[in-house]
Amino acid sequence: MKRSELADMPCSLAGALAEIGDAWSLMVIKELLLGNRRFEGIRAQTGMSSNSLAQRLKALEDHGAVSRRAYQDHPVRYEYTPTEKGISLWPVLVSLTQWGDRWVRKGAPPLSFGHRSCGHDASPVVACARCGAPMTARDADARMSAGMRRDRALRSRGN
Amino acid sequence: MKRSELADMPCSLAGALAEIGDAWSLMVIKELLLGNRRFEGIRAQTGMSSNSLAQRLKALEDHGAVSRRAYQDHPVRYEYTPTEKGISLWPVLVSLTQWGDRWVRKGAPPLSFGHRSCGHDASPVVACARCGAPMTARDADARMSAGMRRDRALRSRGN
Repeated sequence: MKRSELADMPCSLAGALAEIGDAWSLMVIKELLLGNRRFEGIRAQTGMSSNSLAQRLKALEDHGAVSRRAYQDHPVRYEYTPTEKGISLWPVLVSLTQWGDRWVRKGAPPLSFGHRSCGHDASPVVACARCGAPMTARDADARMSAGMRRDRALRSRGN
Repeated sequence: MKRSELADMPCSLAGALAEIGDAWSLMVIKELLLGNRRFEGIRAQTGMSSNSLAQRLKALEDHGAVSRRAYQDHPVRYEYTPTEKGISLWPVLVSLTQWGDRWVRKGAPPLSFGHRSCGHDASPVVACARCGAPMTARDADARMSAGMRRDRALRSRGN
């Protein structure tokens, strides 16, 4: 089963993963959000092969998460900028980075996130948009739409 | 370059992706957090092949994100439970799901998150742990440790 088949599932997680559920695509988005926007610069920081990087940039461009413009003509060289769709991946990168800080790397985090408005280290948390309280899986109820319930019932019966 | 090589980079995002930066592993974690904890049930909902699912469950167990216990003896059948490490992936799943709702699937979200304490639809947001304000990439300053700066300078010089 290929990752692209996830696009056909009635599930937003699957839809997201079909487009950017690949470790290297997320490493590329991280570099772009850090302001590292040229091919050679991204290659140097990620250690990716040119082929692999070109393929990820093309896919991100095809999905509308990255836009490309030439910054030099002879030879032609491109700069890659995250679009609004790409910039909106920031919470995904933050949550993965924090999980990595806590469970994989340990020790002092190499990268932290300052909050410009208040000036402090933000240590971003997931919070309820209604009451503002920080949330974890334990405070959350998964609420499925009628369509999703129906779809899951069919799948569990093997249809 | 293999995904496992990401584990050697001094980067928590890379470390996280080395362990769970695979679309199918995240689909499995989603099922476990929804309470779907048996092999056949997960297979039915994700559409994964038995091989592919067994391989992901084994990797998640090896990384300590999932624990396994037999719930039946003849034949032996296992139930898979997310550990604290697995449960802590909730913010990753939420942020990916919300990104998919907004940019990939569109229409009414199949799955939303209620907040048990306040009873409302949480529409979880990333917020500053210090001042509580919701944050986006535009309010955030990436703050690199001295070690990370040094490592990036070396990489950009090709060392």
